[in-house]
Amino acid sequence: MSSSTQAPEVLISEVGPRDGLQSVATTMPTAAKQRWVAALHAAGLREIELGSFVPARLLPQLADTGELIAFARGLPGLATLALVPNRRGAEAAIAAGAHKISLPISVSEAHSLANVRKTPQAMLEELRSVLALRREQAPDMGVEVGLSTAFGCTLQGAVDEDAVIRLALACAEAGADDVGLSDTAGMANPAQVRRLFTRLRQELGERAGAAHLHNTRGLGLANCLAAYEAGVRTFDASLAGLGGCPYAPGASGNVVTEDLVFMFEAMGVRTGINLERLLAARAPLREGLPQEALYGMLAEAGLPKGFQA
Amino acid sequence: MSSSTQAPEVLISEVGPRDGLQSVATTMPTAAKQRWVAALHAAGLREIELGSFVPARLLPQLADTGELIAFARGLPGLATLALVPNRRGAEAAIAAGAHKISLPISVSEAHSLANVRKTPQAMLEELRSVLALRREQAPDMGVEVGLSTAFGCTLQGAVDEDAVIRLALACAEAGADDVGLSDTAGMANPAQVRRLFTRLRQELGERAGAAHLHNTRGLGLANCLAAYEAGVRTFDASLAGLGGCPYAPGASGNVVTEDLVFMFEAMGVRTGINLERLLAARAPLREGLPQEALYGMLAEAGLPKGFQA
Repeated sequence: MSSSTQAPEVLISEVGPRDGLQSVATTMPTAAKQRWVAALHAAGLREIELGSFVPARLLPQLADTGELIAFARGLPGLATLALVPNRRGAEAAIAAGAHKISLPISVSEAHSLANVRKTPQAMLEELRSVLALRREQAPDMGVEVGLSTAFGCTLQGAVDEDAVIRLALACAEAGADDVGLSDTAGMANPAQVRRLFTRLRQELGERAGAAHLHNTRGLGLANCLAAYEAGVRTFDASLAGLGGCPYAPGASGNVVTEDLVFMFEAMGVRTGINLERLLAARAPLREGLPQEALYGMLAEAGLPKGFQA
Repeated sequence: MSSSTQAPEVLISEVGPRDGLQSVATTMPTAAKQRWVAALHAAGLREIELGSFVPARLLPQLADTGELIAFARGLPGLATLALVPNRRGAEAAIAAGAHKISLPISVSEAHSLANVRKTPQAMLEELRSVLALRREQAPDMGVEVGLSTAFGCTLQGAVDEDAVIRLALACAEAGADDVGLSDTAGMANPAQVRRLFTRLRQELGERAGAAHLHNTRGLGLANCLAAYEAGVRTFDASLAGLGGCPYAPGASGNVVTEDLVFMFEAMGVRTGINLERLLAARAPLREGLPQEALYGMLAEAGLPKGFQA
């Protein structure tokens, strides 16, 4: 029996259409994004972050996020996710019919101020406002928090682990469905990933959220492995490694979806994703962004002989 | 206190001058090799595989292995290692004064025949002959075995894990000092690495040897992490990711030494290696092989802010 016919044990949340495209200067046409998203869905992905609800002058690449969500809602079994930086963004996400929204809150005050011109505490207030909005207008919509710079910050350097856990607890107590940790700056190591996610699960229980890890210094998959061993079951990744964080200098490189799925499937951990179709989903990305560099070791080397995709 | 002043917890065995250079068509001049090896030593590396004792017509890039060993023996505290495919190679290594030799034996019969035109059983006989030679002529020289294709083979596909362990036991019983496992084809995954090295240690005890892992499909560091967790303390790696196995089509990419050392040091596992000096050792490699592609994520991204190298 093919592994893709059994229930998945991990959820791979594709962030390329948001985190990837926001780092690319070229705007991918909406029709090309739709073909890409359809190919990702056909490969078995069941959650895709489709864009951000931020002013179009800041991220013109993502100005069609609402349109893309409307399209993706037509794909059966797909959870549509959008990033929102504030209540206004949440209002737009509700209007667009997103299944879930994700609010990024940076643990590093320096990064938070540089990124959204608000302190982490002010972002916590924004979260409370978003959660109040959900209660009033969209009780079925999911609200997640991703804690940026949880493993270190290019601006302030080391980030205190107690501060990460305190902020995660405050978000959970405010009512966020779950709180994940992001290696925005690509500074995480496996021991730290294991330690922080273990604490997060101890403190937050079922509200401990996704691992959003970067491959900036080559440790992306090792960090995902450590997170998996610490009990994490949701992983953000970007097809062809597109993207990163444009506000953390030098911090590029989301974990490559294909390589991550290959690691799990090779280990016998079911992802629900068909690797051949996933590799095929690079073609519409390539067509939509012909000048952009695509990454990924599996795509270069190919599936091993005899591997059951 | 800098981590490099404390006793190392893992041994990083640099294989670039052998495994790297044998895959490069250009021959690096001996003087350039010497500068590179001196820079690696200055960074804190304490074991370097300097070449192979094979006929120069097969690997002209490594024809100066004896000369390089003579040079490297002058570097204090450095163990000089050479690969030998047979007894004749071992004789040359003894003449050159190598501290240790490594004999590769492939678990896959198809790979073994393609690589050395001998079956694994015939290579086991060759090992016995090499060990007899050591007893007679060089009792202080180390003799290691590396089991190639231990995690899969591009020619035969999957490799039976019991066959790996049986061959490892036979090598240890023949008298090899230790027996390591090599992911020649870049097919290993972390679950398999953990399983096989755990069994290897159970069966061979202190004679369980090094992990020689490739990054062919991006899993190199995740596999090293799994091996470390299974108790492995010696890791082969290649500066700038130079090299691979020219006899396993599509299987390129040793684990990058800089990225591996960064992972361990970031985790608080002492390597005895200074990362800034290690990164600086790319310069003589670049000068010696100006046309060759160098790899490595740490070299691209740089050390994180505040990181103690």
